[in-house]
Amino acid sequence: MEYLTVTAAQQCVLESIKSLGTESVGLENSLGRVLAEDIRANRDQPPYDVSAMDGFALRSADVANAPAVLEIVEDIKAGDMPQKTVLAGQCARIMTGAPVPQGADAVIRVEDTQALSDTQVQINVAVKSRNDIRDRGESMKNGEVVLPAGTEITPGAVGMLAMVKRASAEVYRMPRVAILSTGDELEGLNDPFDANKIPDANSYALMAQVQALGITPDLLGIARDEPGHLKEMLQRGLQYDVLLVSGGTSVGVHDYVRPTLEALGVQMKFWRVEMKPGHPMAFGIAPLTWVFGLPGNPVSSMVCFEEFVLPALRRMLGCTRVHRRTLTARLTHDVKHKHSRTEFVRVMLSREAGGYAATSTGAQGSGILASMSVAEGLMVVPATSRGMVAGEQVTVQLLDGAEYQNEAGGEW
Amino acid sequence: MEYLTVTAAQQCVLESIKSLGTESVGLENSLGRVLAEDIRANRDQPPYDVSAMDGFALRSADVANAPAVLEIVEDIKAGDMPQKTVLAGQCARIMTGAPVPQGADAVIRVEDTQALSDTQVQINVAVKSRNDIRDRGESMKNGEVVLPAGTEITPGAVGMLAMVKRASAEVYRMPRVAILSTGDELEGLNDPFDANKIPDANSYALMAQVQALGITPDLLGIARDEPGHLKEMLQRGLQYDVLLVSGGTSVGVHDYVRPTLEALGVQMKFWRVEMKPGHPMAFGIAPLTWVFGLPGNPVSSMVCFEEFVLPALRRMLGCTRVHRRTLTARLTHDVKHKHSRTEFVRVMLSREAGGYAATSTGAQGSGILASMSVAEGLMVVPATSRGMVAGEQVTVQLLDGAEYQNEAGGEW
Repeated sequence: MEYLTVTAAQQCVLESIKSLGTESVGLENSLGRVLAEDIRANRDQPPYDVSAMDGFALRSADVANAPAVLEIVEDIKAGDMPQKTVLAGQCARIMTGAPVPQGADAVIRVEDTQALSDTQVQINVAVKSRNDIRDRGESMKNGEVVLPAGTEITPGAVGMLAMVKRASAEVYRMPRVAILSTGDELEGLNDPFDANKIPDANSYALMAQVQALGITPDLLGIARDEPGHLKEMLQRGLQYDVLLVSGGTSVGVHDYVRPTLEALGVQMKFWRVEMKPGHPMAFGIAPLTWVFGLPGNPVSSMVCFEEFVLPALRRMLGCTRVHRRTLTARLTHDVKHKHSRTEFVRVMLSREAGGYAATSTGAQGSGILASMSVAEGLMVVPATSRGMVAGEQVTVQLLDGAEYQNEAGGEW
Repeated sequence: MEYLTVTAAQQCVLESIKSLGTESVGLENSLGRVLAEDIRANRDQPPYDVSAMDGFALRSADVANAPAVLEIVEDIKAGDMPQKTVLAGQCARIMTGAPVPQGADAVIRVEDTQALSDTQVQINVAVKSRNDIRDRGESMKNGEVVLPAGTEITPGAVGMLAMVKRASAEVYRMPRVAILSTGDELEGLNDPFDANKIPDANSYALMAQVQALGITPDLLGIARDEPGHLKEMLQRGLQYDVLLVSGGTSVGVHDYVRPTLEALGVQMKFWRVEMKPGHPMAFGIAPLTWVFGLPGNPVSSMVCFEEFVLPALRRMLGCTRVHRRTLTARLTHDVKHKHSRTEFVRVMLSREAGGYAATSTGAQGSGILASMSVAEGLMVVPATSRGMVAGEQVTVQLLDGAEYQNEAGGEW
């Protein structure tokens, strides 16, 4: 099989992914999920014309030649229903959100009036009809779709669900994800210290990348370089919707993983991608399971997760926006590029006039996991690039943790 | 008290906030938390010089005039320790990650060799000393700080913690957050339908905004417009680190909330901010509690959360990056601005050559919560603006849900 480009490999993955079934979730667990049903308004909101201000509901014709003195016939609070009709020369004291009484066609805010007595007020300015009145149904109309199926549930959408009294909603179910590391050289988190081994960082970095999408994965542990054990562990993984297998740098495992997966009924779609870090990247499909074979190197594994697993998981969740947000930044230094693979360079970002500057986190050795923990983005060096130069505008994919910055962004 | 600018109000809040105590969390619960201790490497990684490739470890002098035929004296897998010293004319078959044996000073990848027999290999190209050898300690050196205190735990940092075998770490504890809505006009989520009432959306929108920071808040419910009940509910809220009180548009409540808080020992720092939406925004400090008084209107409440509560909660969590990421975008239409308040306009973003375009979500009525559920950002119109015109570069704060986009961002 030929090497695929990153774009072709992403398309291959995404074409084979679909959302899973649906389930009902309570409002308190709905954030980040995707609606599998249209949500409709169950009332007009506001339910009648209401005041947008604390002030007086009046007939605009009465104050056309302001100042004018009006008789106060009623006090209307939010939650009250008006008892009287406002006649010529009359008004009602009204609070924000309270229903506008019959007869009145405008509201004037209290700041533009002057109290004369408990029953008389002077209106100082003229107002147009409908002034400071919020129309019935302005915020939503009974029966209309306020959140269509496919909407990702943001905090605003949670508020909207509450607004239409939905304590639960139908959403796409979350994929069940298993994570498996492979290789005799690996030392588990709770194994005793062995200077000759390499701690299994992959299982946990991948765990956190999955958690960042709101999904709690199961860690299956470490498959040893023994065919029976590997097969047993892979079989366990194939009970999940998604299996992430990382590693295979020690002898034979890389050869074992693929044939063992194939023997277990996994149809491999690709196993090489023209990228750096991360080219031993595989993807296959089993009857129940999407299988991602990730590099053993932690940085490579994390970058491959970003490019292939993250969009796939988001598509399963029902999201339409499946890719990391990208922005354009000014590169602060040269970057060499002599091979024909797409390269992902870990960068820090800084805000500058009109945009961003991107600077490498330093040595890009794929074993240097610390740089992945401080990177704010991955700068993309296209496969066709002959190298990039300081000052060039480059594309940066934002990473987890890059949603926030030090400065407010301006003096407001 | 004068109105504060948004910037002054943000400073007032942040100056009064500090991180809380610390606690230990397991690795599986550490994502998004902030380290309260330096994390140090507990070994050199790699623990010895290792091969960066599958190939042969050899003496570079032996292949200076390649091609050259060498004797294979050993097979070294990752996890094995070499048993032999490589002498002149010899080499060892070596796998990626395996220790480089004594005597060898370079590795050549298998693609540049040709097997002659089980014990003989032809090396086709010359290599420099140290070729394809990863140095001992390249990824980390025993005892060095790999994650300083104050680091926000990203997926990469989780991997790094696993790499140094830390199953738990000391982090700043999470604030305990209470959410209280106020007003007789409100209908609780589980209350029967009443056409004259307004569903309490605020409690849930705020809940989700807090959840998006990884914090699970307690919802105290709705305080009625009755002084005793309000006092009792506020007292409950003052047992928490943070109390978010929203509402007060119905008669008297707005007047009750502040004096009741003051009677309960809350020192109010401000209660008006020159912003739209959201100017009835209050902040106070009690012996145990930071108190935020948010507008009753859901959109206003959410925007005030973004500007004041979010940075405060992130500071409590120990984060240094406390503000929303901002980017610069091209405005696609005119925006009027006649008042002297900072305005936050809900916008959608679209990627275009070299940057972003920002377009209003439509009607900006502060009751229109649906627009908050689809907005990707808040465009900032500074208080001093005389209006903005199509084509102008504007500042946009990204909102939850804006971390992802439809397109990969390029052909790579």
